[in-house]
Amino acid sequence: MSGEEAPEAPAQQQQTEQEKQPDEPPAAASDAPQEPASSPAEEEVFSCRALVLTGYGGYDKVKLQVKTRSKPQLQAGEVLVRVKACGLNFAELLARQGLYELLPSPPVTMGMEGSGVIEAVGEDVKNRKVGDRVIVLSRSGLWQDVVLVPADQTFVMPESMSFEEGAALPVNYLTAYMMLFEMANIRPGKSVLIHMAAGGVGVAATQLCQTVPDVTVFGTASAAKHETIVQGGVTHPIDYRTKDYVEEVRKISPMGVDVVLDPLGGSDTQKGYGLLKPMGTLIVFGAANCVTGQKKNLLAMAKTWYNQLSISTQKLMQANKAICGFHLGYISDDQLIVRTMATLLELYNQGKIKPRIDSSYHFEEVGDAMKRMHERLNIGKVILLPEPKKEEEKPKSSPEAEDKADKTEARVSEEKKEEGNTQEVKAEGD
Amino acid sequence: MSGEEAPEAPAQQQQTEQEKQPDEPPAAASDAPQEPASSPAEEEVFSCRALVLTGYGGYDKVKLQVKTRSKPQLQAGEVLVRVKACGLNFAELLARQGLYELLPSPPVTMGMEGSGVIEAVGEDVKNRKVGDRVIVLSRSGLWQDVVLVPADQTFVMPESMSFEEGAALPVNYLTAYMMLFEMANIRPGKSVLIHMAAGGVGVAATQLCQTVPDVTVFGTASAAKHETIVQGGVTHPIDYRTKDYVEEVRKISPMGVDVVLDPLGGSDTQKGYGLLKPMGTLIVFGAANCVTGQKKNLLAMAKTWYNQLSISTQKLMQANKAICGFHLGYISDDQLIVRTMATLLELYNQGKIKPRIDSSYHFEEVGDAMKRMHERLNIGKVILLPEPKKEEEKPKSSPEAEDKADKTEARVSEEKKEEGNTQEVKAEGD
Repeated sequence: MSGEEAPEAPAQQQQTEQEKQPDEPPAAASDAPQEPASSPAEEEVFSCRALVLTGYGGYDKVKLQVKTRSKPQLQAGEVLVRVKACGLNFAELLARQGLYELLPSPPVTMGMEGSGVIEAVGEDVKNRKVGDRVIVLSRSGLWQDVVLVPADQTFVMPESMSFEEGAALPVNYLTAYMMLFEMANIRPGKSVLIHMAAGGVGVAATQLCQTVPDVTVFGTASAAKHETIVQGGVTHPIDYRTKDYVEEVRKISPMGVDVVLDPLGGSDTQKGYGLLKPMGTLIVFGAANCVTGQKKNLLAMAKTWYNQLSISTQKLMQANKAICGFHLGYISDDQLIVRTMATLLELYNQGKIKPRIDSSYHFEEVGDAMKRMHERLNIGKVILLPEPKKEEEKPKSSPEAEDKADKTEARVSEEKKEEGNTQEVKAEGD
Repeated sequence: MSGEEAPEAPAQQQQTEQEKQPDEPPAAASDAPQEPASSPAEEEVFSCRALVLTGYGGYDKVKLQVKTRSKPQLQAGEVLVRVKACGLNFAELLARQGLYELLPSPPVTMGMEGSGVIEAVGEDVKNRKVGDRVIVLSRSGLWQDVVLVPADQTFVMPESMSFEEGAALPVNYLTAYMMLFEMANIRPGKSVLIHMAAGGVGVAATQLCQTVPDVTVFGTASAAKHETIVQGGVTHPIDYRTKDYVEEVRKISPMGVDVVLDPLGGSDTQKGYGLLKPMGTLIVFGAANCVTGQKKNLLAMAKTWYNQLSISTQKLMQANKAICGFHLGYISDDQLIVRTMATLLELYNQGKIKPRIDSSYHFEEVGDAMKRMHERLNIGKVILLPEPKKEEEKPKSSPEAEDKADKTEARVSEEKKEEGNTQEVKAEGD
């Protein structure tokens, strides 16, 4: 986010650099060799809770580590943020399986988005002050209760925005906005197919489509979520589990659609391409089809890879179609991010967009949070809360999420037994 | 243009159906089996001049045929147009070499665009009348002095528009407009690389870029054309014959460009893709690199084909780039054409676009016209005139084109000797 080269992850660097766990491997230290170690005299002992990916695999590879470290030293241009809420993204499910190339090798603190309150500002920080409520964006390292980040990676939150909403906004809405308005050029009268319409990007894209008159939204989701996504703006919900979505779209619009947003990859990309009207645009922005079970599935990956669309320009010409790839993590244009965030916050203030929070989990419950997303139980965003979980507190969830509470709770208990007490400091680098 | 299926070419059908040349092969007759032959009693003998592709190969395969035929019978919804000027397109150079799959097999009358005056209207034609000056658009068959076309393939010309301008407008400006505004979403502050910036589409695209504030245009053309294209709106002219255009663009804009319009294909498509900024769009709309000599060059074709860009969606995601194909001939959405033509005629009336006529050639000189385009001597549009050439009349050309008059004239004379008198009726189907 901070230059043409892929930037380092400041929050995570800082943490690994200064952490005092004697048995912690020197992870990612090589990412920040320039940073001078603070002298022992200046140090002030300080406790920090972080969700660390300790190796690739199942849910148990993400561990809550409570670390004692020296008090973070602010560099010029940085701010210290007390984190109140973090967003969980599909990228983190991929990353846990070793399928997300932008995350440094484990052990590494995960987390690309969050919200909180500024507790300290470094030199040369002019437009942020202590007490500001901000959204924070980074490539990784934000799943901590305290982070150090460049001030220009923070965005002041509207007063009416909750911390959960702030943490839910950046990745999903930047992705949806840039796809719809920068790449696909969505305009009145157009039609859009949104896969996983009840997911974070799906909800964001559906809301953003409502800001343009007369846009038809086809949205796939399991039947139980249809009522909610229709309320959110989906014109034609399609139950992809029981029906062939290509046939369903064709029944309503024989010519197909103008835009397909494809987070799935593989054979779904080919189907999406086939569904495009002439002058239509397919945007591939994920490979969710790679993720099947809890651990890396080589067969699913191979299948997704094998079915990946690769088309000649000759064929594109004959079809008058466009294929785009989008990945927020590879956007190196800071100004584009800043401009788009300003637009999104303005849309929020106008009441045109509002992140939908599916559920909030404390750091201790990160496995349950991931499982909820993995099993596509969420409608909207899954949030992680750094604040320690109180005894007997249930996961906070929206009324819709409560419908499935029984099922989820059962799964949570099983998981607990397997995982043991994640509040203990664990530093094994498996 | 007239439905979801590729429509027949009405002008050409009519001609072949009713032509009375005894030695003419029954070309394209199978295209119009439904059309009843008019009874001998109704017939009125009528002479027609047409440029017919008689087989695939060099310039001499396009022959002027003066045919005696029955008077055309108007069907409901059709109009009879006395053609005053026709446009020559790169597609016709490809077609002559057998490289344009949308043209019916020879013998076939070529021509996709023209302008003229309505001489008769069929039943149910409400919004056109005798005497209307119109632009005509079709897939083929318009290089004739009289054509029968559906009224909805005609567009009334602004009063101030010349027939040459009318014939120069549709294919080039529809192509440029739809690429820039439907596919590429060009907006203030963007940059565009236009190859063959002095060609028909190049000039149109450059003018259309001027309708958006603060768009930077990089345009490739040989040095002799730079002054003209800069006057037309190119910000940075690049002589692709003596310099590496990729390096030249990078010198001025190290990050590259937002949009590349690529009529070349092959390795130039790969270079264009490399030049895109993140969130940039490459639009391939031709394969001019296939055309080298006068006849089909299998090596050039193989090279263009081999170097054709074919990219995985994974790579597109990592690059945040879009690849589009555009081909006006495959656009089956009539309403899109009609809407875009209305926009273009409005822009003409506002003085924002004006087709640049490079030169006009009589039908007898079609070989010279094609050669001029093939050798990239034109700046703007090459026009064909159905009206017979008077003795000793030179090709009409713009002042800029006159600069190269000596060179062109020399070539014209050589060609004449090889071709003989094309005014004679030739019907050999070689």
